[in-house]
Amino acid sequence: MEHLPERLAQQIEFLLEIDKLKNIYRQNLVADGSRRENDAEHSWHLAVMAVLLAEYMPEPVDLLKVVKMVLLHDLVEIDAGDAFCYDPAAGEGKEERERAAAERLYNLLPRDQGQELRALWEEFEARSTPEARFAACLDRLQPFLLNYVTEGGTWRMHNVPAEQVRRRLAPVGEISPALGQVVEGFLQKAIEAGFLRE
Amino acid sequence: MEHLPERLAQQIEFLLEIDKLKNIYRQNLVADGSRRENDAEHSWHLAVMAVLLAEYMPEPVDLLKVVKMVLLHDLVEIDAGDAFCYDPAAGEGKEERERAAAERLYNLLPRDQGQELRALWEEFEARSTPEARFAACLDRLQPFLLNYVTEGGTWRMHNVPAEQVRRRLAPVGEISPALGQVVEGFLQKAIEAGFLRE
Repeated sequence: MEHLPERLAQQIEFLLEIDKLKNIYRQNLVADGSRRENDAEHSWHLAVMAVLLAEYMPEPVDLLKVVKMVLLHDLVEIDAGDAFCYDPAAGEGKEERERAAAERLYNLLPRDQGQELRALWEEFEARSTPEARFAACLDRLQPFLLNYVTEGGTWRMHNVPAEQVRRRLAPVGEISPALGQVVEGFLQKAIEAGFLRE
Repeated sequence: MEHLPERLAQQIEFLLEIDKLKNIYRQNLVADGSRRENDAEHSWHLAVMAVLLAEYMPEPVDLLKVVKMVLLHDLVEIDAGDAFCYDPAAGEGKEERERAAAERLYNLLPRDQGQELRALWEEFEARSTPEARFAACLDRLQPFLLNYVTEGGTWRMHNVPAEQVRRRLAPVGEISPALGQVVEGFLQKAIEAGFLRE
């Protein structure tokens, strides 16, 4: 990158490094059930959801901030890997691994941008603002919808009971009652169809 | 979706339909060269690039608008497929196919949102605003960078000459001289390394 000004070289290096998110595979499948979804696709999907569903947030949100947040919320998984949400063992040491990853990745960027994006990730993790709550809500809703349309996808593979899914999805309705309706309706249908066991 | 208000049902249906973008494969590879990139990953990458590189646009841009634009700029490829940019035959009938796709896809949404997003796509295609020009610039720069880091990727596979790549990338420097520097530098290095033939 010696042909570029330092700032621009750092930005391009970061943009090439985060390409690795395309090879971090999640537990859930894509909607046609053909394969597991990766983190880059998941992040893209959340960003589009943010654009379309912001109107269901009872608190006003800064949409650009939400979009930045969801685009990069899983970046730390480049180093720390994806921890399956229904496996308690996968959560062990997760926080530490993710912190180290954030340290390495955001330091690739020019200081001002690295600080801004890292702060957005911390905010997402802390769920301390309307934007972070909306992002958390989408982050749970999206794989839930994909599990439903793949006839139980991850739930069936890992024999996850309805009660555990209900608990995991509870924040959606707390954050956005309208989106909570989506969860309740599909949960009911999933149980009736036998995609989820009561 | 009968358990949902009509508007919300339309939004969820659209969000599930566009999942298909994850299975539309492009010509270029991901950065580690392991496989071709899909449109959802590509769109995610452009959105992050927009956030980081907006400062290099000589005209001020509305960043949220750019991000919405790049997130959905390839949506029509769900029906129309990906046309390889270095293959003139692939471009035949493309415009018509894409128009029909836009008609079908954006009509899934509530009228106001469908109209907004379709208008953004038309704007992108027409390159008529600073936002659309910035989006076009990123849309050329991103696969260019991936072709470089995969030691010529698509260029070598299809034996594309440097002159053709230079022409295809020319708008980048016209739109953003700073990003044009990135292109010029990597183009030179690609030729020196034998990834591209003069």
